[in-house]
Amino acid sequence: MNIVFVLFPNLTQLDFTGPLQVLSRLPGARVHLAASTMAPVSTDTPALTIPPTTTFADCPPPDLLCVPGGFGVDDAIRDAELMAFVRRAGERARWLTSVCTGAFVLGAARLLKGKKATTHWAYHAELARVGAIPTKARVVRDGNVVTGGGVTAGLDFAFSVAAEVAGEAVARAIQLGLEYDPHPPFDCGTPERADAMTLDALQKRYGPRLSTLREALAEALARA
Amino acid sequence: MNIVFVLFPNLTQLDFTGPLQVLSRLPGARVHLAASTMAPVSTDTPALTIPPTTTFADCPPPDLLCVPGGFGVDDAIRDAELMAFVRRAGERARWLTSVCTGAFVLGAARLLKGKKATTHWAYHAELARVGAIPTKARVVRDGNVVTGGGVTAGLDFAFSVAAEVAGEAVARAIQLGLEYDPHPPFDCGTPERADAMTLDALQKRYGPRLSTLREALAEALARA
Repeated sequence: MNIVFVLFPNLTQLDFTGPLQVLSRLPGARVHLAASTMAPVSTDTPALTIPPTTTFADCPPPDLLCVPGGFGVDDAIRDAELMAFVRRAGERARWLTSVCTGAFVLGAARLLKGKKATTHWAYHAELARVGAIPTKARVVRDGNVVTGGGVTAGLDFAFSVAAEVAGEAVARAIQLGLEYDPHPPFDCGTPERADAMTLDALQKRYGPRLSTLREALAEALARA
Repeated sequence: MNIVFVLFPNLTQLDFTGPLQVLSRLPGARVHLAASTMAPVSTDTPALTIPPTTTFADCPPPDLLCVPGGFGVDDAIRDAELMAFVRRAGERARWLTSVCTGAFVLGAARLLKGKKATTHWAYHAELARVGAIPTKARVVRDGNVVTGGGVTAGLDFAFSVAAEVAGEAVARAIQLGLEYDPHPPFDCGTPERADAMTLDALQKRYGPRLSTLREALAEALARA
């Protein structure tokens, strides 16, 4: 089973390293990190760059495609080679998946039309722009499309995908091995439960990002 | 603030990428990924290698040291240069921290003596070998030493550390940005809550690893 993560500059690294930790433990998994070139890919964390294992051109056809998110999504949507790779995968892959704003890469490739989907809370309403049905949940499955919410939702997403792909017993064994029994020290991980000041500060930060994403999506959908 | 992650071959990548995602967002954080050489470091996930940002020799003195775990810990404990770096950090750093079996690297450097600490559930009792007080919790703080449990505990650990270092408001804002509101699809992330068959399978897998860790620790403590 070829599990392919799509890498692009300025991705949010945990969107991909979380699911990678879980899905790479699936029996028979062959994991590929695919990018435009073999040069290490930048992430939102300046200290961390990720060496790809393959280019899009050389990557075997994915059985499971996973697209992470991050501020780099705007440019990823404008990358013709990346988008062609995702569209090709869309025709063949058994599973099409995303974490966080990676959903908009699937969406720009017209793979979310009429599908229930989720993404990072700050971008959730934007899913309608790509014809998806915005669905408030940490993990959403609609047919062969599985989307996860923001960043850390990639873990809940990955255990759900693991169970779909390899059965619940396998998913449970991986969960115990990774000691996934979360106890957040604070209860403020969603806008509904955050205090007003924190929420306001975050919304101010994401506001400009919503505009640039909308532009990138409008261009992509006009071309498609 | 210099935040230094200690890298070594065959580390468990999420032990470090989880805390990295959180701690790199602290105001004023300068993150360094330190290893013996500048060659990309292997992880438990064959597809993923991590390019260090510095060698141990060139790394600025850590204000916060974080040691991840993984099966590579046995060899890390035998790496004289790595251990010297950790011991030096132990004399100067404001915060000494570990995730998962990274605790045994701190322990082999005699930094956990008399300290309450935690680690991955399968290795928990071994903490007594390094003079620590094994403490069952997902995150344990004792003075300037903060230890996290297995792998995914690194997230709860990181938000706790973020709050200690930069205050609760900062930690909460990072948590909302990373949408950390976990909902595991299964409730089996600890040995107490796992079914007997899953637990048995995992214990068989970790059994041989306990022996090799004990040997590495015995050698290190005999030398120290």
